Amino acid sequence: MTATNVPAAAEIITVGTELLLGEILNSNAQFLAQELAKLGVPHYYQTVVGDNVMRLQKAVAIGCERARILIFTGGLGPTPDDLTTETLADFFQTPLIERADVLEEITQKFARRGRAMSPSNRKQALLPEGAEVLPNPTGSAPGMIWQPRPGLILLTFPGVPSEMQVMWRQTAVPFLISQGWGQEVIYSRVLRFWGIGESTLAEKVAEQIRLQNPTVAPYAGKGEVRLRISSKARTEAEAMQVIDPVVQQIQQIAGADFYGIDQETLASAVGHLLQRQGQTVAVAESCTGGGLGQFLTETPGSSAYFRGGIISYDNQIKIELLGVEAAVLAEQGAVSAAVAEQMAVGARDRLKASWGLSITGVAGPDGGSDEKPVGLVYLGIAAPTGSVVSFRYLFGSSRSREMIRWMSLCTVLDLLRRQLISG
Amino acid sequence: MTATNVPAAAEIITVGTELLLGEILNSNAQFLAQELAKLGVPHYYQTVVGDNVMRLQKAVAIGCERARILIFTGGLGPTPDDLTTETLADFFQTPLIERADVLEEITQKFARRGRAMSPSNRKQALLPEGAEVLPNPTGSAPGMIWQPRPGLILLTFPGVPSEMQVMWRQTAVPFLISQGWGQEVIYSRVLRFWGIGESTLAEKVAEQIRLQNPTVAPYAGKGEVRLRISSKARTEAEAMQVIDPVVQQIQQIAGADFYGIDQETLASAVGHLLQRQGQTVAVAESCTGGGLGQFLTETPGSSAYFRGGIISYDNQIKIELLGVEAAVLAEQGAVSAAVAEQMAVGARDRLKASWGLSITGVAGPDGGSDEKPVGLVYLGIAAPTGSVVSFRYLFGSSRSREMIRWMSLCTVLDLLRRQLISG
Repeated sequence: MTATNVPAAAEIITVGTELLLGEILNSNAQFLAQELAKLGVPHYYQTVVGDNVMRLQKAVAIGCERARILIFTGGLGPTPDDLTTETLADFFQTPLIERADVLEEITQKFARRGRAMSPSNRKQALLPEGAEVLPNPTGSAPGMIWQPRPGLILLTFPGVPSEMQVMWRQTAVPFLISQGWGQEVIYSRVLRFWGIGESTLAEKVAEQIRLQNPTVAPYAGKGEVRLRISSKARTEAEAMQVIDPVVQQIQQIAGADFYGIDQETLASAVGHLLQRQGQTVAVAESCTGGGLGQFLTETPGSSAYFRGGIISYDNQIKIELLGVEAAVLAEQGAVSAAVAEQMAVGARDRLKASWGLSITGVAGPDGGSDEKPVGLVYLGIAAPTGSVVSFRYLFGSSRSREMIRWMSLCTVLDLLRRQLISG
Repeated sequence: MTATNVPAAAEIITVGTELLLGEILNSNAQFLAQELAKLGVPHYYQTVVGDNVMRLQKAVAIGCERARILIFTGGLGPTPDDLTTETLADFFQTPLIERADVLEEITQKFARRGRAMSPSNRKQALLPEGAEVLPNPTGSAPGMIWQPRPGLILLTFPGVPSEMQVMWRQTAVPFLISQGWGQEVIYSRVLRFWGIGESTLAEKVAEQIRLQNPTVAPYAGKGEVRLRISSKARTEAEAMQVIDPVVQQIQQIAGADFYGIDQETLASAVGHLLQRQGQTVAVAESCTGGGLGQFLTETPGSSAYFRGGIISYDNQIKIELLGVEAAVLAEQGAVSAAVAEQMAVGARDRLKASWGLSITGVAGPDGGSDEKPVGLVYLGIAAPTGSVVSFRYLFGSSRSREMIRWMSLCTVLDLLRRQLISG
């Protein structure tokens, strides 16, 4: 079949026996599918194949008949079961050549990290004659951009999602645009909400969800709800002319339940509010063990408003480092409103912050009782005014330890956020 | 091609344009892959195809040539773009017949839920002549088990994961067992390593990687390396007789670089060592902001050995709560060996733990300098003996803030782990 009969479409070919064993989710295919949609590249098939030369060759043969861009992930590592590059070279009867520049770069990367380079890493410098290097700035295995014959483009990426994504954005997207793709691109903004359910929000913005351009689609996950507002246009500015008014309508309708756009997190939203008001926060964490501090410091520059915290996993630490009264602990227990409030005050005062946040609860799976079941969490907020308040939540014993901890730290951040926007 | 040339394997064909747009992850393929592995059904390819008759027919044609069991998910709903059943009937030139029993069941389900049945739901009662119903106890669209010709089995499921999984377990698994599958199942164990590269480890255990039974396959990700040891057997005990000796060989070869099996994490491995030795740990975190504490407390029951920590994001907190000397901070800076050591001592002594761990570094992306670049991290360990030691790491500015923080906390845990196993 000649290339002209083949649709101008892309096919994603994911290589890895671990996918055939169900050990990992094929998140690379999802990422690439989203990216192809954004660039307007048609995409009709995805194939998953194991680390096996013969079967990979058959997948390539089929792919060539139904797409002009084949995108491979996986199989670029140094071990013998990493065989994507050599299989492609073999399939298109092209010799592999060691690239001095690639070898040099791999050698330097190992040197910078102070690790010895093994002979098998040398294999990663082999590329088919005529292929261009697709640089991997964050890992050791580079990919390639190769046109083994007219009308057919192969792109290869390692299977590690973070490496693949950087390579895609830095090199593959500009390449595809240079090939004429991406004249019309789907642009979108994601609006994020906390404290409202998906169906309630969907009812409130039913009018917007019915729109054709932009489209408005709701998603729910990990306690939050998101709305994706998308429009296809030649330029981002053109798309935003359609998207922005709808974003503003939805923000107005949702009120305080809306907390941020795109990459905003509850932690960064709180951080920006604190920074704008010239205030700081400190934390006292029990069942979350440091997760609230970690979340707050995910945001670069968080030292402008985050002072630090006390992880008071042991009760003695609640007493000694946070000033929780031993009698209150003994009478009411560590998981109580009074202890949450004293922890929040201790964090605020001892770490000299404007606000003190606290979390104490039963994250499970063990340690629950009839009186204090798994999922019971008290959250405390000590304000700069000197006042302190606590909140009692039952996150439910059907939730995992991980989810109870996540809901706890998001909820206390959301409570602070609502105080900051109303005050 | 006759069926006898086709491998006795399954292929998963997922039908849905939403997958090609990247709107959802293909979790159905992962579930089915795991289930096929458990039943010992070989599985070499997965295909994703959109809601399109012609392209689905082509995928079926290819599937018939490389597998004897084709498993379809998606495209069984009532809307016009749900076309799996009719496309299969058409491909195998078999008439569709309305099944009175299926229609009755769908009608009753709608009645029970108090919802009106639309004419389009009637479509879901159509199945190819000769196909058996694959009941859907929790949804409206049933699937089918169909042998359109000798040596070829088709199974269809709706795309909703919860419905598909119930149908798989209740009907498809017993059916596959009745066909002779499930006599042999793949069992595996995952060995986890820290402080050794994938290629170096692969060379050390090259002899094991060459084995046929069990198979040994390396994987790398997020700083660690894993080896999966798998064997196909009638019972788990039988598989473990083959797997366990190889596990022991590899443990011996890898020495201290091996840290755990299966679900073990560096944090839980350290926790088990501490618990066994009757010791405890406390942490002092700067650039990780609480992540080390969070990681340690991911493990249920960690209160047995984790006392708590100080998140000393601000320098004043390093001085006041950890006892770091102001003069040392001023002279050497917060990111220095001396400060890491004083933080570790402060954590150990002020939180009354056996061990104190500390992390102070430049996580980036900003805040780096020529002298102290992004990725420079000092890790401190204060021992129960009173001694204290610090380690200097350059995790590299090419790594993300998230990855530098992750590498920092894993590395300090690994350093403690090595002290615990050697002491």
